Amino acid sequence: MKNIIVQKFGGTSVADTDKIKNVANVILKEKAKGNAVVVIVSAMGHTTDHLLKLADEVNKSPNPRELDMLLSTGECVSASLLAMALQATGNKAVSLNAAQAKIYTEKVHGSARIVDIKPESILQHINNDEIVIITGFQGIADENEITTLGRGGSDTSAVAVAAAIKAERCDIYTDVEGVYTTDPRIVPNASRLEEISYDEMLELARVGANVMHPRSVETAKQYNVPLRVRSSFKTDNLGTLILGVEEMEIRRTVTGVAADLSQLRVVVCDVPDVPGNAGKLFERLADDDISVDMIIQSYARKHNNTNDIAFTIYKNDLDRFNNVMDEIKSELGCSNIFIDDKIAKVSIVGAGMIDRPGIAALMFKTLADSDINIRMISTSEIKISCLVDEACAKDAVKALHKAFHLDSDEIAEVKGTLPDEE
Amino acid sequence: MKNIIVQKFGGTSVADTDKIKNVANVILKEKAKGNAVVVIVSAMGHTTDHLLKLADEVNKSPNPRELDMLLSTGECVSASLLAMALQATGNKAVSLNAAQAKIYTEKVHGSARIVDIKPESILQHINNDEIVIITGFQGIADENEITTLGRGGSDTSAVAVAAAIKAERCDIYTDVEGVYTTDPRIVPNASRLEEISYDEMLELARVGANVMHPRSVETAKQYNVPLRVRSSFKTDNLGTLILGVEEMEIRRTVTGVAADLSQLRVVVCDVPDVPGNAGKLFERLADDDISVDMIIQSYARKHNNTNDIAFTIYKNDLDRFNNVMDEIKSELGCSNIFIDDKIAKVSIVGAGMIDRPGIAALMFKTLADSDINIRMISTSEIKISCLVDEACAKDAVKALHKAFHLDSDEIAEVKGTLPDEE
Repeated sequence: MKNIIVQKFGGTSVADTDKIKNVANVILKEKAKGNAVVVIVSAMGHTTDHLLKLADEVNKSPNPRELDMLLSTGECVSASLLAMALQATGNKAVSLNAAQAKIYTEKVHGSARIVDIKPESILQHINNDEIVIITGFQGIADENEITTLGRGGSDTSAVAVAAAIKAERCDIYTDVEGVYTTDPRIVPNASRLEEISYDEMLELARVGANVMHPRSVETAKQYNVPLRVRSSFKTDNLGTLILGVEEMEIRRTVTGVAADLSQLRVVVCDVPDVPGNAGKLFERLADDDISVDMIIQSYARKHNNTNDIAFTIYKNDLDRFNNVMDEIKSELGCSNIFIDDKIAKVSIVGAGMIDRPGIAALMFKTLADSDINIRMISTSEIKISCLVDEACAKDAVKALHKAFHLDSDEIAEVKGTLPDEE
Repeated sequence: MKNIIVQKFGGTSVADTDKIKNVANVILKEKAKGNAVVVIVSAMGHTTDHLLKLADEVNKSPNPRELDMLLSTGECVSASLLAMALQATGNKAVSLNAAQAKIYTEKVHGSARIVDIKPESILQHINNDEIVIITGFQGIADENEITTLGRGGSDTSAVAVAAAIKAERCDIYTDVEGVYTTDPRIVPNASRLEEISYDEMLELARVGANVMHPRSVETAKQYNVPLRVRSSFKTDNLGTLILGVEEMEIRRTVTGVAADLSQLRVVVCDVPDVPGNAGKLFERLADDDISVDMIIQSYARKHNNTNDIAFTIYKNDLDRFNNVMDEIKSELGCSNIFIDDKIAKVSIVGAGMIDRPGIAALMFKTLADSDINIRMISTSEIKISCLVDEACAKDAVKALHKAFHLDSDEIAEVKGTLPDEE
């Protein structure tokens, strides 16, 4: 049995028929190495936006089941066109939709999770020497209900298929050249990472590096599928390999810096200091699916025997948050609620951080030296996040990137020789 | 159990989202009469052409299986949008693709025939008071292979579904107002027929009236499903009802006149008069799927003991015909082959013709009076066709339409009162 490589191509990589032909060439290069290739494709470029616009024209709040029926057509178009493009070069290829590839999900529309992939159909086509093209982003539930996986769904499809068919590696082809130490639009000499661990990638993804959706990285970690993020258009660039920390050849204390502008800060004032009152608040928010990230309960009980509770939530949960607070405000007995949406969460991430207590100190000192005020702090084993004013976010990222020696010329010294490519 | 009406809407009826909303209104009018409604839709307007263009850009001769994967997306888009449009009006609706509606075909790509429809899924949604929207033109074979039905496929889907769920009637909504006595572009006072029998419609369809594909009419005849051809945009016009001859309220001797320009005439000269020689020729043409229509073997054996054999074939079979003749010409021992593509087949059709021997005579006399030469003749129980020069086709249609009293003012007298509408 040949080694199997799974390749995933996003919407920009298959935006038009010329790009689809380019993708066919990328696939054939991998096949020429003697590997079997299974490909997951997204819908062509702006197809999904176009379909959403049509839906909006007939119904302002379209039914999620019908929306899945509609949107799932996008990947069927790109998958069949890609199979045709490969066949035009004299190669055997076949496109499979989710029912044909046997990708089963929960019966939830718009954000289903994959529950099972039966690999026999895919493997049978591989044994027949066919390049297998599978529609990303979608699955089936019950007998024939079409579901979609929600944001980042095609990446998740690719990783789940790679795990199910025991692929050697899953290559995520995209319009960026890999994972960087920080956003190159903020720090021009940010450098591409050769390797990063699943956990570091998860932290970076959560704090605003838009390369991959956390769910797909979690799935890759769960099944230990090595992921490579690389460019569809500069294929001699090997991109970034995401893998288990124990398989990494290089470990750095701090791997990356990221700024996240998607949250806002809430202060609920004068919450009476009754046991269970704060718990009641956060339980209710969880019930309404409102994620709370950083939390600070006021250090000192105030003279009137109340606490101020500050925390961050995502900006697009604000309407639902306000509804919940309207309902429970009197029950809680709090006074005012302040909202501050001009904040940014700046984070440093690194698998080697856990053994190095000086890292947090260096982060705080660096921000202080740049006159940037820290409003809240949260930490995990491989991450330290500071909440700062939105206006300071870029300066904070630049200063931290420099302080932790992540600029491209310095990184080159640290990383030494490249790991050999297969 | 309510009566079920099946409605089919073609591509022009759902060409954009405004037209889809119009279709939703047409459906709701039928529902308001107390009927359950099942709808078959084609792809939106030029979707199929657009998809074919994309396919052509990646592969000049696309694989039929992949083409079916690609084209079948068109109806999924229109079906889900139509379901959303109905839901926007507060009605329950659901779209079903071929797998969900359980429409099974042969495993042939591009021109599959429906072999079975399991009605339980459709009926279950009807019992749930949902308007059921089904993708036309497609089916599934084996476990999950997507097939398409070829030209006129959505009409066939509609009729087959109507038969499977025992619908009262199948309404084919289209961009014409019904079936006419002849093409109104040739004879401006051609009149719309209130009723026509399946067999008459089949003959008219075969001789060039483009209203419905013969396959769907054959299926309707087989299962005795009444069909109504009517306009999506002028819904107070009841169109034309196609039904069994025994159910017709009005029988006319001649129902319609049509001209077919899709054939050409072939003369194979000097075929030696050996038994089985002509049979060999036509058997070989049949093997290569080349349909032969009118045939004349020369009346008198010629002095050199050979026959000339003349027949008509379809213009788009000409390349294949030439290939066959290159192969078997020497075996047959014939001399020249003449091709004449400037011919037209002009036909009169009518279920009442069978008892009236004077009809053929009137047809020939009418053409003779117009100085139109008849090159070949063929007849069936309800049709007489004459091959004439292409340049005479329109004059022939006009003269016959007048001779058989089909002009709109005359027809009005013949037909008497209208049959009551449901």
